[in-house]
Amino acid sequence: MTSRFDVAAIGNAIVDVIAPCDEAFLEAQALTSGTMMLIDGERAAQLYAAMAAGVEASGGSAGNTVAGVASFGGKAAYIGKIAADQLGEVFTHDMRAQGVHFATAPFEGGEATGRSLINVTPDGQRTMSTHLGVAGQLTPDDVDPTVIEAAAITYLEGYLFDPPSAREAFVKAAGVARAAGNKVAITLSDVFVVDRWRTELLDFLAASTDLVFANENELKALFETDDFDAAVEKLRALVPLAAVTRSEHGSLVIARDETHAVPAYPVHKVVDTTGAGDQYAAGFMFGLAHGRALDDCARLGSLAAAEVIAHYGPRPLVSLKALAKTAGL
Amino acid sequence: MTSRFDVAAIGNAIVDVIAPCDEAFLEAQALTSGTMMLIDGERAAQLYAAMAAGVEASGGSAGNTVAGVASFGGKAAYIGKIAADQLGEVFTHDMRAQGVHFATAPFEGGEATGRSLINVTPDGQRTMSTHLGVAGQLTPDDVDPTVIEAAAITYLEGYLFDPPSAREAFVKAAGVARAAGNKVAITLSDVFVVDRWRTELLDFLAASTDLVFANENELKALFETDDFDAAVEKLRALVPLAAVTRSEHGSLVIARDETHAVPAYPVHKVVDTTGAGDQYAAGFMFGLAHGRALDDCARLGSLAAAEVIAHYGPRPLVSLKALAKTAGL
Repeated sequence: MTSRFDVAAIGNAIVDVIAPCDEAFLEAQALTSGTMMLIDGERAAQLYAAMAAGVEASGGSAGNTVAGVASFGGKAAYIGKIAADQLGEVFTHDMRAQGVHFATAPFEGGEATGRSLINVTPDGQRTMSTHLGVAGQLTPDDVDPTVIEAAAITYLEGYLFDPPSAREAFVKAAGVARAAGNKVAITLSDVFVVDRWRTELLDFLAASTDLVFANENELKALFETDDFDAAVEKLRALVPLAAVTRSEHGSLVIARDETHAVPAYPVHKVVDTTGAGDQYAAGFMFGLAHGRALDDCARLGSLAAAEVIAHYGPRPLVSLKALAKTAGL
Repeated sequence: MTSRFDVAAIGNAIVDVIAPCDEAFLEAQALTSGTMMLIDGERAAQLYAAMAAGVEASGGSAGNTVAGVASFGGKAAYIGKIAADQLGEVFTHDMRAQGVHFATAPFEGGEATGRSLINVTPDGQRTMSTHLGVAGQLTPDDVDPTVIEAAAITYLEGYLFDPPSAREAFVKAAGVARAAGNKVAITLSDVFVVDRWRTELLDFLAASTDLVFANENELKALFETDDFDAAVEKLRALVPLAAVTRSEHGSLVIARDETHAVPAYPVHKVVDTTGAGDQYAAGFMFGLAHGRALDDCARLGSLAAAEVIAHYGPRPLVSLKALAKTAGL
């Protein structure tokens, strides 16, 4: 049976505000390089005032991923909460302009569309301070079962483990997907998320997921160990399939009976690492939904990640479909 | 006497929405490549819906110019009308983050901050469809005489010749600047603007300006001729100083008794020509305000233009001060 969607993703609908900074700025603002921190409106206003002039672009981890799937020529749907405001219009436009199905009702109320203030150091590392706004107001009612039933893979953004109603939405979506015989994927998103919800995440992974995305630090945090190989074996025992990204060292695909180490694609100059993991997931799931071998799925992921870190902004600027063709994938 | 500001600019406060397109898109949307067209809210919604996913960045011709002046290490002020909305906040932030004085009161009312929908073809050419929103609501009351009196050069954006109250603001600003012994500069902005207001523009140039910026097409349109050299001589007779930009052929500085042809800076790949003329004006006026020779002013302008066309977005991404130092300027 052909699915209507390769991937249906549920995530924080966020507009990114991206500006350059130096290491001294991160220190002065008490920010930890390479992480995502949740901030309230007051802190967002204060931090924004201190930031350099920037550019705005639709973001959100899972939003970036479905944009990547669409760029590969895949079919994607997105579920996430925006407000009926200008940034919400921008987010909606950018989704639909890429052919992504996006029909979540905007949140009516005082709060604004979520914003992530992203400070990028000269080494390309990004540090995100996210004011969720209405993004965290996602509820199980926002999960349209017909969308989940029609998707080969339902992809859940770990960041949404924070708001209780959004986590309920995950449980509903995973149940609908499994009942329809579809796969459930999740990204661990961030070491802070893993630290906050380790027990709950481990339970959810074991009970409800077929595919886990994590980077090296998130994986180590999940199993509270510095021993990468030990963490890999624990993850292998927990879920049927996982992909672990290791920055310039490529990625590791971990299945029950096989392991594939796939190198990273070379990048001339790393400009902004925002969205690297999101695009890796896009390539991997596009491949998986189209029946590709696991190592090719990882190569598609690496290719997409390499495209996005070579420029400012969290989504691909060129057709990943064309890029994959050129790369012989 | 040292001025508090090198440049005080008055312009349409606009946020750019920049997306890639192909030539067929321009044709289908009845857009003329390389021009700026004013559109109403309904058309803006329709065009935006048809556009590809994009990025947002603070823009506006004169706004880009003062950002460039600040990037050179110059002191700048800006006068322009935003609404009290999210895009207005973005515009304000980006001005102040660069150290630009910006204190125009936001417009209170139903309309939104102005937006320019910019479609960029693969050759880097930009085609702008601008929904002015509240930007056109600028009035003489918004012109703070203390700012104009404190600026070595008052810079006027030709686009504001369209709304009558904004043109009155120009007349007021020019009067204040001249009375204070300061210079008045203007950019012709666009061939359509020149065609709409030729007589009025010619009168204003003769009566109230010390420095005119134009590109080749605007200059020819102003004097309704295809003879570039003839147009140059007419401009020389009209105003004390002018700088005419000729894309890859560099620029021509036209003073009463001297002419300087200055080549363009080489660019590896032209990505997006949005803001090229704005940055040329920034470099030229920064040089002029700092007592540089006219040919060096043109070189500073060419350098800034080369920086901005090598990437997406209308404002410099690197320090023009540092760039000028590296270039021996």
